[in-house]
Amino acid sequence: MKIIKDSVHDHITIDGVARDLLDTPTVQRLRSIAQLGTVSLVYPSANHTRFEHSLGVYHLACEALEHLGVEGTQADRVQAAALLHDVGHGPFSHNLEDVTYRRTGRYHDDVDDLLASGQVAAVLEEHGLEPERVAGLVAGEGRFGQLVSGELDVDRMDYLVRDAHHTGVPYGTIDHGRLVRELTFVDGKLVLREGNVQTAESLLVARALMNPTVYNHSAARIAKAMLRCATEHLLEGESDGAEDRSGDRTETDIDAKTLQRMDDHDLIVALRQTDATREFSRRLDHRDLYKRAVWAEIDDVPGGIIEADHGSIREFELEIADDAGVPEDSVILDVPGRPSMTESTSRVVVNGDIRRLGHQSPLVDALRAAQYSQWRLGVYSPEAVREQVGHAAVRTLGLDIDGPLISETRDGLYATLDQFVE
Amino acid sequence: MKIIKDSVHDHITIDGVARDLLDTPTVQRLRSIAQLGTVSLVYPSANHTRFEHSLGVYHLACEALEHLGVEGTQADRVQAAALLHDVGHGPFSHNLEDVTYRRTGRYHDDVDDLLASGQVAAVLEEHGLEPERVAGLVAGEGRFGQLVSGELDVDRMDYLVRDAHHTGVPYGTIDHGRLVRELTFVDGKLVLREGNVQTAESLLVARALMNPTVYNHSAARIAKAMLRCATEHLLEGESDGAEDRSGDRTETDIDAKTLQRMDDHDLIVALRQTDATREFSRRLDHRDLYKRAVWAEIDDVPGGIIEADHGSIREFELEIADDAGVPEDSVILDVPGRPSMTESTSRVVVNGDIRRLGHQSPLVDALRAAQYSQWRLGVYSPEAVREQVGHAAVRTLGLDIDGPLISETRDGLYATLDQFVE
Amino acid sequence: MKIIKDSVHDHITIDGVARDLLDTPTVQRLRSIAQLGTVSLVYPSANHTRFEHSLGVYHLACEALEHLGVEGTQADRVQAAALLHDVGHGPFSHNLEDVTYRRTGRYHDDVDDLLASGQVAAVLEEHGLEPERVAGLVAGEGRFGQLVSGELDVDRMDYLVRDAHHTGVPYGTIDHGRLVRELTFVDGKLVLREGNVQTAESLLVARALMNPTVYNHSAARIAKAMLRCATEHLLEGESDGAEDRSGDRTETDIDAKTLQRMDDHDLIVALRQTDATREFSRRLDHRDLYKRAVWAEIDDVPGGIIEADHGSIREFELEIADDAGVPEDSVILDVPGRPSMTESTSRVVVNGDIRRLGHQSPLVDALRAAQYSQWRLGVYSPEAVREQVGHAAVRTLGLDIDGPLISETRDGLYATLDQFVE
Amino acid sequence: MKIIKDSVHDHITIDGVARDLLDTPTVQRLRSIAQLGTVSLVYPSANHTRFEHSLGVYHLACEALEHLGVEGTQADRVQAAALLHDVGHGPFSHNLEDVTYRRTGRYHDDVDDLLASGQVAAVLEEHGLEPERVAGLVAGEGRFGQLVSGELDVDRMDYLVRDAHHTGVPYGTIDHGRLVRELTFVDGKLVLREGNVQTAESLLVARALMNPTVYNHSAARIAKAMLRCATEHLLEGESDGAEDRSGDRTETDIDAKTLQRMDDHDLIVALRQTDATREFSRRLDHRDLYKRAVWAEIDDVPGGIIEADHGSIREFELEIADDAGVPEDSVILDVPGRPSMTESTSRVVVNGDIRRLGHQSPLVDALRAAQYSQWRLGVYSPEAVREQVGHAAVRTLGLDIDGPLISETRDGLYATLDQFVE
Repeated sequence: MKIIKDSVHDHITIDGVARDLLDTPTVQRLRSIAQLGTVSLVYPSANHTRFEHSLGVYHLACEALEHLGVEGTQADRVQAAALLHDVGHGPFSHNLEDVTYRRTGRYHDDVDDLLASGQVAAVLEEHGLEPERVAGLVAGEGRFGQLVSGELDVDRMDYLVRDAHHTGVPYGTIDHGRLVRELTFVDGKLVLREGNVQTAESLLVARALMNPTVYNHSAARIAKAMLRCATEHLLEGESDGAEDRSGDRTETDIDAKTLQRMDDHDLIVALRQTDATREFSRRLDHRDLYKRAVWAEIDDVPGGIIEADHGSIREFELEIADDAGVPEDSVILDVPGRPSMTESTSRVVVNGDIRRLGHQSPLVDALRAAQYSQWRLGVYSPEAVREQVGHAAVRTLGLDIDGPLISETRDGLYATLDQFVE
Repeated sequence: MKIIKDSVHDHITIDGVARDLLDTPTVQRLRSIAQLGTVSLVYPSANHTRFEHSLGVYHLACEALEHLGVEGTQADRVQAAALLHDVGHGPFSHNLEDVTYRRTGRYHDDVDDLLASGQVAAVLEEHGLEPERVAGLVAGEGRFGQLVSGELDVDRMDYLVRDAHHTGVPYGTIDHGRLVRELTFVDGKLVLREGNVQTAESLLVARALMNPTVYNHSAARIAKAMLRCATEHLLEGESDGAEDRSGDRTETDIDAKTLQRMDDHDLIVALRQTDATREFSRRLDHRDLYKRAVWAEIDDVPGGIIEADHGSIREFELEIADDAGVPEDSVILDVPGRPSMTESTSRVVVNGDIRRLGHQSPLVDALRAAQYSQWRLGVYSPEAVREQVGHAAVRTLGLDIDGPLISETRDGLYATLDQFVE
Repeated sequence: MKIIKDSVHDHITIDGVARDLLDTPTVQRLRSIAQLGTVSLVYPSANHTRFEHSLGVYHLACEALEHLGVEGTQADRVQAAALLHDVGHGPFSHNLEDVTYRRTGRYHDDVDDLLASGQVAAVLEEHGLEPERVAGLVAGEGRFGQLVSGELDVDRMDYLVRDAHHTGVPYGTIDHGRLVRELTFVDGKLVLREGNVQTAESLLVARALMNPTVYNHSAARIAKAMLRCATEHLLEGESDGAEDRSGDRTETDIDAKTLQRMDDHDLIVALRQTDATREFSRRLDHRDLYKRAVWAEIDDVPGGIIEADHGSIREFELEIADDAGVPEDSVILDVPGRPSMTESTSRVVVNGDIRRLGHQSPLVDALRAAQYSQWRLGVYSPEAVREQVGHAAVRTLGLDIDGPLISETRDGLYATLDQFVE
Repeated sequence: MKIIKDSVHDHITIDGVARDLLDTPTVQRLRSIAQLGTVSLVYPSANHTRFEHSLGVYHLACEALEHLGVEGTQADRVQAAALLHDVGHGPFSHNLEDVTYRRTGRYHDDVDDLLASGQVAAVLEEHGLEPERVAGLVAGEGRFGQLVSGELDVDRMDYLVRDAHHTGVPYGTIDHGRLVRELTFVDGKLVLREGNVQTAESLLVARALMNPTVYNHSAARIAKAMLRCATEHLLEGESDGAEDRSGDRTETDIDAKTLQRMDDHDLIVALRQTDATREFSRRLDHRDLYKRAVWAEIDDVPGGIIEADHGSIREFELEIADDAGVPEDSVILDVPGRPSMTESTSRVVVNGDIRRLGHQSPLVDALRAAQYSQWRLGVYSPEAVREQVGHAAVRTLGLDIDGPLISETRDGLYATLDQFVE
């Protein structure tokens, strides 16, 4: 048994299979992957890692299992899955997930391979657990998969509180102690007990307030887009066989699969050492970020753009750059997917029936509407060319804007926090 | 200058007129008035007082004034009003406000008389402040009255955070540091600067989550209703001239005006020492509370009942008791007013225009709907007669209930917290 | 099972015998006894009660028992004792313990009678527990008595953290999570496991820093001394048979045994309503405290004074008043006992041996020396007569002072905090 | 003006010269230097950086300057120094300071060169500040240098609280709000006002408790020693001209000056990519640490060893390895300097005189004694050869040990925390 001191949950007791998994390179690697990626450029204290988050998720899983009365192998399996649920993350966590997914077809919760080999597989087997069943839990499969990856999972309970602790933004301070006590299974579904509509709502509200303030803060989005571009260059391996004066690499042999197993240090240094990425890397290192040339609401953006795939987006960028008369790397088009809200399908018991929160709570529709009103398409560029890029983008993308190119309307914390941190 | 250590804001520096007001009996009395009245029967740590809250409001007012660039006499006046804003409270704060208002026509923010006499008047005048203007600010009058008593006042910023700290319920942890920085005046109206729709929403959400969980928790409402009944008896002074064996008073000479100047100790002891209130007092002291006989949703209650005045309510209680065959004190009818949401009129700057939050945020309507769905009429009685009282109440009040008499539907934290604390 | 939300330990689960004891009047009464008595006159947020503290002690006892592997009746007995450990307190907790002890021969931990009768006895017996054995644990008897009342008891673990939370003074924030995990029994003695010398020291240091800053703050000591005097008058029952104009009592029938069962409300109101105590009561209510006329170090005070009993002290007061030409109530002599430090006998395992912390840690002697240097004899009086009382006291008591009468030398936080709060 | 959200001080307002310095590469680089180096291998949440700490120090400096009434250029200079005080740190902060000092003669507070060139110099000059005077403040020179680097500097006020927040160890929670208010200058010396002996002591105690628990935790010391060895190899540049199969570097061109300007990412990747350091790097990445072969008290170590310079230490290591028959990298000798306690020279005003805390407080000697008793010489090796290395070390170093080689006597939190985390 091992006891670890955590800044959020205080003492975490770690035992059994989790104790043995802890010392594997696969889990230790998470120490070098920042939980919130580029968000630390906005909130300087947000340097927490996937490692401490994984410990926290493991801890809450243990508490939930105890309240649910689950023991033995089933509990071991869930505990292993809780500790391992993020080992599939590449550097900068979610920031680059699209980049690698497009090339590997894998999201971070697709961990079959990772669990089926090496020390992790050995440890699991030693404890009588099948790697594929643990991987299934990580992917949210089955009754207990809901606890690890579902609308009411312990993952989000930990990250909301932890991200609040480390950013200093209080909106994420949910009552996780209550949540883990109120979980129960009804007909195989993980639900909150009678009388917890508001407990479920509080989880939803916490995410809704953290989203624009923290997770989708405009400066974090800009930095993430720059990181994404740089990483695309890195993967494209713009090799010319030569070596530049400083001895740095002008080509790379990094492919997406390699990238996924790197950590933040590897990627940051690779970006610094590669010709094609050096400028982006310098800007990220010095927090010399691109600025918003366009920041457009969802109603002003043609549907085709919102649904555009990576190839089309890349073409739009080139077209805008061409129209604006700027180098191609001076234009980044950032189109988030349509808003979604998984918590709306959380289940609560109401008068003895199981209901979806979305049917029960008027808040769900309101928060969904808020998400729509906060959605923004961004076009980013170096400050000096912001104006021409903005106008070129409006023309190229067919945006329906006739006022200012930066729409702050109903824009939550964006405007002010930009004033804070840009 | 004096520095006071506060558990919420750490060091509070108190100076000038506020420093001198601090030592007046009028302000010191607030040490003996619990901020949340009977809520401490649900949350045992919630023993904070109006005194520390008043210091907190003063502190936030100073910060807001500094950010607004207000100085001199105007600032003094606001600071005085902030420290004095609650001196009009009677024992148990809001719990008995209806009882005294019915007899005196005064709410707690009607403090003209209190400020115009005694040491408070002397201190104000010594500092060149007119008591009636300070009282005006407490009542929310004028430009700066909005800061003391309005939709965006520092009062609620303090109480949300303080109540969260002392109950342990995290929902009230708003970002008050941000709120006081983002206030500004536009055309004489106190508003939040551009980009703060979500800051305003977070205030609204905090109240919406604290309401059913803390302020209107069913057990706190029952205890409040019992306290109200007992106090009515006390004021009715059921005098029969005799003195009972224990030497305790069988009559009282306490009228509503006297009551308003009492503190919690005075009232608690008076209830203990008076024949007519001794049973309620014993129950409150031992937390032997009445139970809910009926707990009905707004749609199941005839409009006439919702609008009924105190006299009609009293008649209904007698009628129900008669129908159920129980003593008259065994029935308490508790009808809250129709839900309201003052924060919905908060003003925010959006694209350069001032807008009402209610027009800007889809959350406002959702939270209003939530309030309606959480509204409950309560009929309370001793546990032993719960059943017959419940059925008598349904008949007497014409409630439209054909299932269980206790409706937990969409009932937020009620059901579970009752399990917690009843 | 009941779950209670606590501002310090979050959710406290209360079950079994403790669950049933919770609803007894004996335990509910603790809601109306302030944990720190007059300290709230210095730290306005310190309004927490013996009730929430008792819940906290119960909670830590449960955790310690779990780590120690204790179950069954033995665990029930300790849990009952933890919840009941403070039921013997009179109003204002320790503040008046000397006053009642002198008349009843009982300290607050002498609870045999209280547990052997009424609802508490009934509940204990129902759960198969003998009241006298539970009372024995409260008094610190036997193996498990050490956990409830000893050098390493859970009582001080809770109060240090709780008092820090409510005063805002951070010095009490010990690592209670670690402490309860590191307890073990060796040869029937409760000790801290190998490697915890510093854990033990941290407990000692926390108390050493909280003492002068909080528990013995000079203003709290003055208020306590005034309260003590007033209560002596109350118990002396200066009856003259008459009733004054306002109908208030000019005599009282309160004896020490009655006093011990009163709560803060009862005593505060009794002091207000009694002629002989009305002036002290007014001063305490309005925080119009006496001032220090003398504040003398231990080396300047004759040994006979330090050891003087209550009768002698009273005589000294009269003599000083006479010498100074002031009314007798204008002089209060406050002589604390010689410093003691129970934690110095905490046991820790070092290299396999059990050692007393006092033999192991150089800190113990240093903190003991600090206690001596912080010790002060106080003589208090109304501000107007401070000077003559001070000089009369020096003469009467034979104090060895030739400089200023208020010695701040090596006086910790006194001077500055007095500046803060007087 | 910029406002930054900090997890410790909430909102930090940054203005003037500090605002402009913030965006320089020199300051932004601090984002990539961990505040506590290898401590995060013991406390997984301790991932905070020199950047957020520097913001915190700047913030406390502003508060102190305001309380001291310092304005204008003098204040600008101190604020610049506060923000820049750590820019001289190399990767892993203090962990490698000895390694670079031996080669460059510079400690991290020797920043003349760094401030005299590049963007920092430009910004300073633009604001009318001389770089060399700001560098002087960083080095602790002059009246105001005491505020930036001295016994009562704001540096330690920030790091104690911040390290407590991020490790979860509560011992560092000092009352910084009080400290910055109580600072004053007397005869050019920065002192704490009358009545603050205990305030000064609390600072001392906080460090004394954080030292063995956090800063000198044995596992953190082992990891630091391994990092130091690896870095020595890196600097020794064991070049053989060849390139290995994986294309990684077998030689390095990194010298000490280059190292000092690298950040954590650069160093971690360089260690991974270099043959001579790959094994240490793997062990650090996977937390597969050496174990203690010897852990000896100060009285058991010959004086010559304690004073030995780097060359002699290296020779001892080779000798021990030779004696034990293990490869030379399998032995690390870790000899801390003699304990020191700078806070003991803090100045406090006592009865109007300025005194050194060391003369005033019995705690200082006690804590110094505790430091001596906690001092340990360590010899580390891979677990498999621990035994033979231990015995060889005792022989080679002439240690006076006849019992176990690991002395836990009076060893604070070591033993147990090792159980926690090794």
